[in-house]
Amino acid sequence: MQDAAPFDDLSDFQTVLIGLPGSDSRAREAARARNDRLTKPPGALGRLEELAVWFAGWAGTERPVLARPQVAVFAANHGIAVRGVSAFPAEVTAQMVANFRAGGAAINQLSAWAGATMSVHALDLDRPTRDFTTGPAMSEAEVVRALETGWTAVDPEADALVVGEMGIGNTTSAAALACALFGGAAEDWAGRGTGIDEAGLSRKVETITEGLGRHGAALTDPLEALRCLGGREIAAMAGAIAAARSHRIPVVLDGFIATAAAGVLARAAPGCLTHCVAGHVSAESGHRRLLGKLGLDPILDLGLRLGEGSGGALALGVLAAALRTHSGMATFDEAGVSDG
Amino acid sequence: MQDAAPFDDLSDFQTVLIGLPGSDSRAREAARARNDRLTKPPGALGRLEELAVWFAGWAGTERPVLARPQVAVFAANHGIAVRGVSAFPAEVTAQMVANFRAGGAAINQLSAWAGATMSVHALDLDRPTRDFTTGPAMSEAEVVRALETGWTAVDPEADALVVGEMGIGNTTSAAALACALFGGAAEDWAGRGTGIDEAGLSRKVETITEGLGRHGAALTDPLEALRCLGGREIAAMAGAIAAARSHRIPVVLDGFIATAAAGVLARAAPGCLTHCVAGHVSAESGHRRLLGKLGLDPILDLGLRLGEGSGGALALGVLAAALRTHSGMATFDEAGVSDG
Repeated sequence: MQDAAPFDDLSDFQTVLIGLPGSDSRAREAARARNDRLTKPPGALGRLEELAVWFAGWAGTERPVLARPQVAVFAANHGIAVRGVSAFPAEVTAQMVANFRAGGAAINQLSAWAGATMSVHALDLDRPTRDFTTGPAMSEAEVVRALETGWTAVDPEADALVVGEMGIGNTTSAAALACALFGGAAEDWAGRGTGIDEAGLSRKVETITEGLGRHGAALTDPLEALRCLGGREIAAMAGAIAAARSHRIPVVLDGFIATAAAGVLARAAPGCLTHCVAGHVSAESGHRRLLGKLGLDPILDLGLRLGEGSGGALALGVLAAALRTHSGMATFDEAGVSDG
Repeated sequence: MQDAAPFDDLSDFQTVLIGLPGSDSRAREAARARNDRLTKPPGALGRLEELAVWFAGWAGTERPVLARPQVAVFAANHGIAVRGVSAFPAEVTAQMVANFRAGGAAINQLSAWAGATMSVHALDLDRPTRDFTTGPAMSEAEVVRALETGWTAVDPEADALVVGEMGIGNTTSAAALACALFGGAAEDWAGRGTGIDEAGLSRKVETITEGLGRHGAALTDPLEALRCLGGREIAAMAGAIAAARSHRIPVVLDGFIATAAAGVLARAAPGCLTHCVAGHVSAESGHRRLLGKLGLDPILDLGLRLGEGSGGALALGVLAAALRTHSGMATFDEAGVSDG
């Protein structure tokens, strides 16, 4: 069963964020000690070793397994899509939700490959958020409802979570949000998204600059920035990432938009992303910068720029491999191998 | 059934290399056209798209699957181990072969994770190659026998191959070989291997320099360089990589030592590695340089430095994901999605 969300407004949500639990340092240290006894030179599995020890802390056990990972995909429509900031028309959001449900999208294949259960959450597709150059994208009730949708989408029994998204126009929303949260100019954060041309990119930069100017000082509060510039799927991902930590479920972040959602949480409650790893760095130009701001080192760098949770699902597979080696390998004693 | 190797000496092997078949350009182009119709923005799956199209050419079909991948691990002992070039004693080679056979090593877990059948090939462990500072590591009969072992180890029905290795001292052999094949100084190619200290690294550099001086002009012939400086597992990997191409089986290379084996083939018959991708770049310092010399762009960069085929097996998983998306996704027409 899904839990009800433990917040009714943004102030409650802020309080929830500050009170989220940490990981189990005893399990982490036990995993680190086990790692040192496995039949390999110390450190020879590189990032896989770090992932296994980190995961052990959240799983609360020395030898964790990945038995029930979840990929949750959130979809929403954006008022700013009317500004011509995307290479695709807005109706593609609903078409792709149908494609997710029919099993035809990349994330269906990648979730199956990673052994994950995939859930799809369409958030009021027929009611795009407001064009953020004309006013706040969402009312407080709307953003809270989206956060709740994300919170309750998380399976409390899952042992890892990837959050992904679909929403024509959402790289513009994410770039505006990143700019509000981490500074810099619109040009630093705006990229090609699904493949917009030079003129479209200029419109995107103008739209972001206009939106930032429109909301001004309100944007210094990270949750207000989410309300003013975000989208429902971005808020839902933020809610899901927070819910995961409330259940001590580690999260593998996807690309630019999912990371922008995580960035809201990091600015609202510093330190609240220790249960997250960056699954990949995408080809969307602002993503590397955003990961740098969050101090996250991506597991994969494969030039993806699809969203949907695709890079997160791929990295989930690598995480599964890390746990298999950690929990399945023999120790030097067990195997009778000299340890140097 | 395994094929008998179609060579009796190094000259025959050179002839075989020059006559290896290419990939199917029609299948590759059909796969490229399919990729353009899948429900995602063009190029949005980045490296996954390139891998799928490349693989389709070797598989000879527009929608390839990965049903029967093989991980072949070759083990051998090295005369130069007596020079104190490794952090581990030479008996660890045989102990790790036993660990591979018992299922306790990292590569067992990673092969299982990738859905691959793993085969283990121990090459005359009780007869180390000769210390290459005192003479050629192998006679021609010995190196040809090792090439044959590798050639016949490849399952002709496999649809992808990873070659891996185990052999205390073999980063020294691989570094000497890389230096002979691609120039530079011993310092450019010698790294920490399983974790040797500063004094050990100095001994390693001296050993390589001494070996290169000992063999001099003989090393200008790549197959002679393999005979003089290589190990049985390195020759076996070279034989297996060549055999894979004879069966049109794509190869995912592992780390520094496997890539050195591939480097021998590339120097002996330029262009003969088009069926290979670099699975990863390892933390062994010479690997990135060697991949650069071969024009190979690694799929993963996770700080691994274990060998055994570990990075190759991980990348095999990524390749499987690439083929799943390519062959399993819906097209724009099938899904009724507007294509921008």
